[in-house]
Parts: sequence; C-alpha cells; structure tokens
Amino acid sequence: MVKILAVNAGSSSLKWKLFEMPQKQVLAAGLIERIGLEKSEFSFSVANKQHREQLKISDHEAAVDCLLEILTKYQIVGKLTEIKGVGHRFVNGGSFFSKSVIIDEANLNLMEQVKELAPLHNPGNILAIKAFQHELPTAVSVAVFDTGFHQTLPPENYLYSLPYQYFEKYHVRRFGAHGISYRYVFSRMLELTDQPRNQANAIIMHLGSGASICAIKNGKSFDTTMGFSPVSGITMQTRSGDVDASLLVYLQEKLQISPQQMLDILNQKSGLLGISQISSDLRDILAKVNSDSQAKLAIKIFVNRIIKYLGAYITELGQVDNLVFTGGIGENVPLIRQLICDKLNLFGVKLAERKNAAIGQIAKISQPSSQIAVWVIPTNEELMIAKDVFELGKFNDGPKIS
Amino acid sequence: MVKILAVNAGSSSLKWKLFEMPQKQVLAAGLIERIGLEKSEFSFSVANKQHREQLKISDHEAAVDCLLEILTKYQIVGKLTEIKGVGHRFVNGGSFFSKSVIIDEANLNLMEQVKELAPLHNPGNILAIKAFQHELPTAVSVAVFDTGFHQTLPPENYLYSLPYQYFEKYHVRRFGAHGISYRYVFSRMLELTDQPRNQANAIIMHLGSGASICAIKNGKSFDTTMGFSPVSGITMQTRSGDVDASLLVYLQEKLQISPQQMLDILNQKSGLLGISQISSDLRDILAKVNSDSQAKLAIKIFVNRIIKYLGAYITELGQVDNLVFTGGIGENVPLIRQLICDKLNLFGVKLAERKNAAIGQIAKISQPSSQIAVWVIPTNEELMIAKDVFELGKFNDGPKIS
Repeated sequence: MVKILAVNAGSSSLKWKLFEMPQKQVLAAGLIERIGLEKSEFSFSVANKQHREQLKISDHEAAVDCLLEILTKYQIVGKLTEIKGVGHRFVNGGSFFSKSVIIDEANLNLMEQVKELAPLHNPGNILAIKAFQHELPTAVSVAVFDTGFHQTLPPENYLYSLPYQYFEKYHVRRFGAHGISYRYVFSRMLELTDQPRNQANAIIMHLGSGASICAIKNGKSFDTTMGFSPVSGITMQTRSGDVDASLLVYLQEKLQISPQQMLDILNQKSGLLGISQISSDLRDILAKVNSDSQAKLAIKIFVNRIIKYLGAYITELGQVDNLVFTGGIGENVPLIRQLICDKLNLFGVKLAERKNAAIGQIAKISQPSSQIAVWVIPTNEELMIAKDVFELGKFNDGPKIS
Repeated sequence: MVKILAVNAGSSSLKWKLFEMPQKQVLAAGLIERIGLEKSEFSFSVANKQHREQLKISDHEAAVDCLLEILTKYQIVGKLTEIKGVGHRFVNGGSFFSKSVIIDEANLNLMEQVKELAPLHNPGNILAIKAFQHELPTAVSVAVFDTGFHQTLPPENYLYSLPYQYFEKYHVRRFGAHGISYRYVFSRMLELTDQPRNQANAIIMHLGSGASICAIKNGKSFDTTMGFSPVSGITMQTRSGDVDASLLVYLQEKLQISPQQMLDILNQKSGLLGISQISSDLRDILAKVNSDSQAKLAIKIFVNRIIKYLGAYITELGQVDNLVFTGGIGENVPLIRQLICDKLNLFGVKLAERKNAAIGQIAKISQPSSQIAVWVIPTNEELMIAKDVFELGKFNDGPKIS
C-alpha cells in the first residue's frame, strides 16, 4: 500500500491527484493555476471538501512546494517520504518513448530533445519533473506519454506525404495524443469484453474539450486523428481540426497576422466556438440547437467529422468488434452518441435507445444484434498514470515497500 | 456544325483543343509553354502529326495570336470567324458560379473578384479570356468552372471549423476542383448505367497528376477531398494532400522559410515525389516497387489515403451504387485499382480481375455480384468545355449558325 502522485503539468498549471495504490483510492486532488502570473489559484479537494486559495506562486518549484505543504498541513500524508512515486503526464515523447519509463538522466535528456514538439506542454512537464525530483528525492519519478500508445502506428499512417528527409531529420510525423486515455479505456474494454488483446479491433472516440479518435488493430494503435500536433483531426471545442494549408497562408495575408497568430486562432478560437459563435462548451450549444442556426451547424459539423473518420477507420481495419465513447462529451451526452451511431447503420450498428441514456458510467449501449458493440467507458488518465508508477516502481513486490 | 475552341490557360501556359461540334471531332490540339519566359515552346498536332516550334511569346495575347496564326497557316480553319465559340476552363469561381456562363462584363467582373482564390491559375485564365475576346470578337466566350460542380456541397461539408466570419468575409470554404472532369465522367456513367441522375449515389476518383475524390449524392456533388485549394486531400504526384497546421509553422522555423515557400514545398516537392525520392510519376515508382522501400511506401501511402476517403464517403452517403476511376492513373494503372478495391471488400466490392486489365477505355471492372459496381471511365475535360459552349451558344438552334 503506497501513496502515488499523478501529475499533469502545463506551462502555467499543475493538476494533481494523490492515490493510495493498489487500492486506487483517491486521497486528494487539486489544481494550481496561473503559475508565474499574478494571483495564482490553488484549488483542491480532500475527503469531498473543496478548498480554494489565492496566492503568489512564482514558478513550478514554488507550486510543488505549495502542494506538498498542503498535503502535510491537511494531514493527507504524515511525512512526505510516504509518497513513494510521482507519475508525470508527458505530452509528446517523440519517437523515443513507446512505454512509460522511470525518469533517469538519460531519459530526461531525451525528453529535453523533443521539448519543441509540444511547445505549450513539454517544457512545463520538464519543469514539474525537476521540481518534484528536487523536493521528493526518495520518490520514484515516472513519465507517462500521451503519444506512447500511438508509436505502433504503421509508417503509412504516421508519415505525411512530405519530403521524406523531414521525417528523418526533424521528427515530422503523426504522433497522436490522448494515448494515456486510450490505453486506460482499451484495457477496461478488454476486461468487459473478455477479449484477448491481440485479437481486438476497436475504435475509441475520446471526445472531451480536446477530441480525437483511435483505431486499434490487433490490440495496437493503428491510426489516430490527431497528427503532428493536437490541432488536427476532428472538430474540437476551440480547435479547428483539419484545414487546408493554402487557406492558412491566404488568411495570414488577409488578416495581416503571423503564422504563430494563425495557429493560435486554430487552437483557441476555432472548432465549436468558431462555428457556433455561442460557446466552446457543447452543452451551451446543444441548449440552443433548436433556435439558433449556427448552433445547429456546429453540431452537424462536429458529428460529420467524427462519422467520416469512423468510416475511414472501419474501412482501414476491415472489421471492428467494439466502438467506445469516452471523454466528457463521449461519457455524458447521449444525443451526440445517438447522432453518430445513426450514421453507422450501414455497418450494422444498432443503438439501444434506453441503454444510451447512461451518463458517466460504464454501459453497453448497443442492441444484442448490433454487428459492432457500442460502449460508454469513462476514462481515468490519472489512475492510468498511478498504475504505471506502481508497476514500474515494483511496489507490488513486497520488500521494496518500506 | 461549328468550330469551338476549348482553352485551359495557366500563368505561363495555354492548352487548347479545337472541336467540330456537335460531332465532337478534334480538329487540332496544342500546348504553348513558357509564355513570357525565354524560349517559349509551341507544340501542336494536326491530323495526327506532331509539330513543335520554339519562339518568343511575350504574353497571353501573343500566345493567342500565335495559335490563331497556326490555325489558318495549317488550314485547320479557312478564316478565323469560323470559330464560333471559345470555352475557358476557369479554376476557381468562388461561390459565384455553379454553372458555366457566357462571359459578359458583369461575369468577368465577378471573376476578377475571386482571382486571388487560385493565384496560380485564375489570373492566367483572365488574361486568356481577354486575349481571345480581343482577337475573336465574334466568337461566344464561355467560362467553365472547375469548382462549379461542387457548389452543391452542404454547409457541413464546405465549411471549415474556423471562426465563421472568415467564411462570410473572405470566401473561406471548401471549393474542391476537377469539377469539369467529374461532370463529364458522371454524365457518361449515367448513360452507361441508365440511372436517373437524381437517384444516383456514386463516388468518382479523379487520379491524375492532381488527384481528388468526389462523393455524389442524388446526382449532386456532396463532398470532395480538395478543399479551399487543390493542395489538400489525398496524396498526389507532387502535392502533399492533408497535413497538420502546426507542422507547417514548425517546419517554417526549422527550415527558416516563409509561409509561401512552405506552400511551394507542399505543392511541388511533396506527395509521391517527396515520399519516394524517385519521381513524381507513378509509373517510375511502380517500376521500383519490389526493390526500393521508399517506392513501396509511396504506393502504400497513396492507396491508404484513397481508401480512407472512400470509407468516409461511403459512410457519409449511406449507400453507393457506382465507384468510378478516371484520370491518368485511374484510367491506366490496373494495379492501383486492384489495391484500392481489395480494401473495399467489407462493402461487398468484388473486382473482376480480367476486366480490370482495361487501359484507357470504358470498362465495368467489377463482378456481376459486386455490391458496388466499379467502372473505368476516361475523362475528357476539353470535350465537356466544348459541349458547354455549344449549349450556351445555342448553336443547336439552327438559324444562329451562319
């Protein structure tokens, strides 16, 4: 029985969850926002009680200090050495990492080398890793990669039709994302279906604020909608998904903006927000879908892009046993699931209307006669991270636990 | 019986074909290259005899002069007034033109307004239109739009997930291309299948040096792979097809190049050429497919992208009766057709191996039991243009023909 911290750090934020493992019990969880800015925010919950503090947190090291102080102050841990492991979500591990690893100097060095592949996330991840290693020197430090699961993509799916030397020299390829989520949900799916991993063909839709789809062939990621970066693929809350390259140059000239500004628009002002002109939140848009034509259009486009990728992936896989919804939207919005499944009846998909009412819980939502089974399986990326730390730290072996 | 000239002008080239209509007889055809550059090239064929001349052609007006001189010099026409109509391929007519039109001042003005939507083609088209109007003032002048056929796309397919005002203010949408080819091939397909236009669901693959796919629903273009520009969609000879937006910004920084230079690479150095590092010509790559891993990869990626779009479009249409191959590759490379159809057997597609040997001719290449019929139908964009001129000029009405 060990305490393990799962950490998801951004450039100015640090999300954390403390687990008792292997019981999977959540002892506390929290979020530090606006690190390095004025008025940082520290919110957390212990024993179902919410707390919020405003204070100045100048950098990731200060954030870690602050978090550890809270843990002892609220007696979540007696002393800090009780925390035996820290697992870090690392957004883009390039082609170096297909599995989670204990972070030693060599691995950290590789992670530094691919820092620029996720400029909004990787640098913050590295700062957090160093800060925790400094403050908790006895804890095992583990990196869990959002791209790791997709390292099994075949070349025809990870390569772009660009001059090949860009792949060789500059890491130019499809990396995908949401790999931690896919790994968790896929494992749960295998438990639920009792299917051998290496025979499982499945498609998982992670529909959250970021959204992507993953085609799994014989138990391995075979294709995914996010590419070199998480801006491409299907329509997201504020991200555009796929666009035409010439269009970007044309718009940069029209709007007199830089390529980086164009990219910011694609990341922050596009997607459901851009089309609907209402909100980035699907619930706000759904609330207006009968009265507002832009809202209706946004939903139509959101579903349309998903449908097309599903058709592409079913074709590519040849045969699919299970289709899984996860992520905030996938777990909680029956209407979206229904709109998607309605367009799949050429593949023999039959939704069970009443079962599809399920919200935020595991459910098989297809009819028994459906040729592809359809599931809702809530994701849990933090638990996946904690599990990896527990395994890599060999905490199960007994004597190592002090 | 009238003589009609079909013209396809680029920024420095002018391709032409002279027809006797309505007999569809080709009287002569030719190509002028390197207009405005040193050593322009003029090649043409009359009565199956090839001619080639090198001379200085300073601009589009000079090119038209030169062409008309040839027509009289070789006695293809007795006098120039015999040419009753000139039809121009116009690459991108924006949202203004869904059908071919007689070019009057108002239409030409609209065409000027969307010039920037196809910066490599539209300006050359306009120069050629003006030159012919000047040199052949009595001929009817018609514009035939490569984007026209796709103006029936529903909003969910023509809109990008970008801030909606870009569509309203700056013509930001999916335009598609190869519309003249699709229109021709689809009409031929309807004749061959004896199917009513408004009940026909079909997918046409125009696989040439540029390549795209069009999904037709109830006789109308419903979706297509090329977008705002012809750089996106499937892998082409030298064009990349779909890429990730962040990737472009990343590569611009790595290579220290401008957005326009990046776009030039996507247009001219990517696609089959970029992956194979052998050639942009599919035949050269196929010749090495068993000995060269890059050649094999290029073919795999080329087929892979097509498969995925076919799956997406079949899903979107719900039901498809006919699948058609056209364009240089589609008409002439049985192996590529086979590789594609092999991946469609989940849709009940069954290729007839012997019939698939067809090269450059109309053929039904599926087995009778195939759930989707598969065709090869050679395209003829010039004839489509000549037909539109013939119809719009009302040359069929008798008295008008002098």
